[in-house]
Amino acid sequence: MTKLDLLQKIREKQSFLCIGLDPDLSKIPSHLLDFEDPIFEFNKRIIDATKDVCIAYKPNTAFYECYGSKGWESFEKTVNYIPKDCFIIADAKRGDIGNTSRYYAKTFFETYSCDAVTVAPYMGFDSVQPFFENPGKWVILLALTSNEGSLDFQFKKLANGQRLYETVIEKAKNWGSDESLMFVVGATRAVEIDNLRKLAPTHFFLVPGVGAQGGSLSDVVKYGSNKQCGLLVNSSRDIIYASSGLDFEFSVKKVASQFQAEMALYIKQNNW
Amino acid sequence: MTKLDLLQKIREKQSFLCIGLDPDLSKIPSHLLDFEDPIFEFNKRIIDATKDVCIAYKPNTAFYECYGSKGWESFEKTVNYIPKDCFIIADAKRGDIGNTSRYYAKTFFETYSCDAVTVAPYMGFDSVQPFFENPGKWVILLALTSNEGSLDFQFKKLANGQRLYETVIEKAKNWGSDESLMFVVGATRAVEIDNLRKLAPTHFFLVPGVGAQGGSLSDVVKYGSNKQCGLLVNSSRDIIYASSGLDFEFSVKKVASQFQAEMALYIKQNNW
Repeated sequence: MTKLDLLQKIREKQSFLCIGLDPDLSKIPSHLLDFEDPIFEFNKRIIDATKDVCIAYKPNTAFYECYGSKGWESFEKTVNYIPKDCFIIADAKRGDIGNTSRYYAKTFFETYSCDAVTVAPYMGFDSVQPFFENPGKWVILLALTSNEGSLDFQFKKLANGQRLYETVIEKAKNWGSDESLMFVVGATRAVEIDNLRKLAPTHFFLVPGVGAQGGSLSDVVKYGSNKQCGLLVNSSRDIIYASSGLDFEFSVKKVASQFQAEMALYIKQNNW
Repeated sequence: MTKLDLLQKIREKQSFLCIGLDPDLSKIPSHLLDFEDPIFEFNKRIIDATKDVCIAYKPNTAFYECYGSKGWESFEKTVNYIPKDCFIIADAKRGDIGNTSRYYAKTFFETYSCDAVTVAPYMGFDSVQPFFENPGKWVILLALTSNEGSLDFQFKKLANGQRLYETVIEKAKNWGSDESLMFVVGATRAVEIDNLRKLAPTHFFLVPGVGAQGGSLSDVVKYGSNKQCGLLVNSSRDIIYASSGLDFEFSVKKVASQFQAEMALYIKQNNW
């Protein structure tokens, strides 16, 4: 999917919502536990309820691989069930020496037909580069994450005056174009988003942390958007665990639609 | 497995060799491709040929997950086949927000009975901490990797005068004791190993990069060991792809035994 395709989806659906598919068997509605594959059943209902109001889904691999090969079957079924007009992000935070990263790229771009994979930057250029060898696919590189631990290293001041996350963006933006590279920028640090938007004016940002983690959508739009929107805003827990009732799909749809309605306003206001 | 258990294994086997189980279907001996699970057949033969001369095995998850759920079955069979007296490292380089890292810990410590998992530090304390919630299990945190890309961020000079990898070690060594935390320190940068050993005098280092990647075992021992050895030295390609013939196990055993013989000398010399 190209950057223009993404922008078209944003316009069509009046949404830049990404939904995190992080199924936790201890949290999903209990009536689903009777199914042979409760994880897939849960995801299927979430997807059916939300596919018209979001443009992307982001399954986090941790929630699948903890169930072993059966969990990966659920992952595969989920990826295959997502409508073709949605952008699929494998939230895997992989990254290894080049030879090994090539196998991770193969995993998410060939074995599973994801459009994008999240990648950790610590090992540098040659750990990220193999992911770029797949035309039409995207790397979403961790820059500034939404958790407390981001203070430990990402915020470290370097001798050149920059913080580490700024250097990550500045260096990495030359590794891939804005047609193949996005950055993860947590919503919980609005003032930093502004700063990062200046460093990478044309790249898409994948923004987690809105909702349960405390980030505000209006701040993200104010500080993080660009002339072509440039945002995929993710929500996981607020949407997928909106209810644990028999009719949880209605609550899921309601919460996702609330996000979309707010996004539609911003899209109109900014003429994206 | 405790630190003392590890040291005892080193003494018993006169070896601190770790073997990377990174099976690549395009490189394994072709006669194994006729088996139902060539990856497991390959690993099984490697393990049979080397279990007396190494103390640890390190399957890298990329080489399994690229084959989907079938690949994870091979991973599981491999982990279960490794003798109980060997230390099993899942080379996964995972790391995510706390709630998610907890699932990664569950994956490698419960779903698969690994002793240790490699973890990426970029997301900080709360991305690593959940791995420590498993008594008797180990976190092996990336500090200084052996690839070229390590220059991009790990070597960045911070405002406090340290390089990033030094700060990672200095900060992280307070997150877990030397009974639950090791560091990845690449063999290709001997002078840095010396430096890192001063920062973390009692922690074990997992050292990749000896052999195919250019690192020297004698330098690693000279600069990286401590009074209780403190080293797990990994070799992957040099050993597992020593031959592609019908009797490749003999070459595999020969190369692994050469590593062990050299290690035995150092163990004696240093009275470990």
